Amino acid sequence: MHLVKLGGSVITDKTRVTTLRPAPLRRLAAEIAKAGRETIVVHGAGSFGHVKAAKHRLHEGYLEDDQLAAVSEVQRDMRQLNLAVVDALRKEGLKPVSLPPSAIARLDDGALRQIDLDIFRRYTDLGFMPVTFGDVVLDSRRWFAICSGDLLMLTLAQAFRPESVVFVADVDGVYTKDPKVFREARLLREIDAAKLSAVDVTAPRADDVTGGLAGKLERMLAVAAHTDRCLLVNGLKRGRLLAAIRGQPVVGTRVRP
Amino acid sequence: MHLVKLGGSVITDKTRVTTLRPAPLRRLAAEIAKAGRETIVVHGAGSFGHVKAAKHRLHEGYLEDDQLAAVSEVQRDMRQLNLAVVDALRKEGLKPVSLPPSAIARLDDGALRQIDLDIFRRYTDLGFMPVTFGDVVLDSRRWFAICSGDLLMLTLAQAFRPESVVFVADVDGVYTKDPKVFREARLLREIDAAKLSAVDVTAPRADDVTGGLAGKLERMLAVAAHTDRCLLVNGLKRGRLLAAIRGQPVVGTRVRP
Repeated sequence: MHLVKLGGSVITDKTRVTTLRPAPLRRLAAEIAKAGRETIVVHGAGSFGHVKAAKHRLHEGYLEDDQLAAVSEVQRDMRQLNLAVVDALRKEGLKPVSLPPSAIARLDDGALRQIDLDIFRRYTDLGFMPVTFGDVVLDSRRWFAICSGDLLMLTLAQAFRPESVVFVADVDGVYTKDPKVFREARLLREIDAAKLSAVDVTAPRADDVTGGLAGKLERMLAVAAHTDRCLLVNGLKRGRLLAAIRGQPVVGTRVRP
Repeated sequence: MHLVKLGGSVITDKTRVTTLRPAPLRRLAAEIAKAGRETIVVHGAGSFGHVKAAKHRLHEGYLEDDQLAAVSEVQRDMRQLNLAVVDALRKEGLKPVSLPPSAIARLDDGALRQIDLDIFRRYTDLGFMPVTFGDVVLDSRRWFAICSGDLLMLTLAQAFRPESVVFVADVDGVYTKDPKVFREARLLREIDAAKLSAVDVTAPRADDVTGGLAGKLERMLAVAAHTDRCLLVNGLKRGRLLAAIRGQPVVGTRVRP
């Protein structure tokens, strides 16, 4: 089995609220179909989640009653994005089945305490492709909390020990510095816990409710312990996801535990 | 707590595939909001489910591999309908949370074997309004099966013993004969197991994958055992759902166990 994370920065326009990027989504769905492997797909929230979640401080858990309408709204927006992902996969002849964390998971102080993993296995056994995503989920201490796509990746990797895990982002991989700011930034072809210290992990952006790059890299290192091949590739470049799933040479950052 | 079933014949155009009836949906959402009670909403599938489910014989369970794409497609269509229901409720200031049976339930030879009831309770405790619906669900013997909205009504009524249960249909209630065919058909203001024999239950329509009127009446009688007030009312007539939830006199059929 393979595990693919479609980053919110690739399939949505992060600068405009609840705005899809249909072209990369369509192409990535086609690459998953072409790879022809048993796959679980996780997708991020992008502008369908982060904007309103940040505005209403949903990542801090319950603070005031006004947040509850925002929880319902963000869950609703994520279902809309998820429907677009499901449709893109169906168009390529795949048989996606959507498993929303707000319905199947519970957090405990931000940690994933409970999720129905058996249902993922059952659907893949029948030839379906489970699709799950970053969501607002019930939390036993904070009432509700963000269950990020990356947290789901870790839990699914632990449970299923996939052959490969591919994170699809809007950059070529992990750089020594932010390549959008510094010209001298250098792409790291491999990264591990030791090399992580060489990376200039800047503070998370104000609208990122899932911990920014530092948290992301830490979770990727954790995921890498549960698979033979963990990669970060650029989903805006044609063919990279396909090559990554197939285990072919590809521009990107390989993450080692 | 109150339990409301929005029939597929009311919120969708049963004669046209995947076609919403936005006006009654909007009005019924407003009546639920105006009632102001803690409520769980269940909705049927109507033309978002029955047409394709019947075509691919999904109610018979696994027969051939070609059905699997249809399972994925009908689940997808139901999520689209559910999104419309969620949006209608949100527009009225409610805080719906969608709980899809394909993600939270398992059947065993068509019987509901497993469903996460705790999550309904937790969401209502926080002031959310759980919304679930007829769906195609994993079945341990048939691989997959139809989990009808009425089956969910029975399970939820058993679990939560609601103050009232209201079935919203496109007829004024249960008649002695099919009122769309026979002029002498008479509305029954009350029905129980004994009176059921006086009803001319015609064969289910070819495109009904959930058992037709006979099965529906039987499940309503079963539901009635778990609530003080079980009613069938016409959702195409303004105010009847509202009156039914409030316990006010209303045209309809009261179902007694």
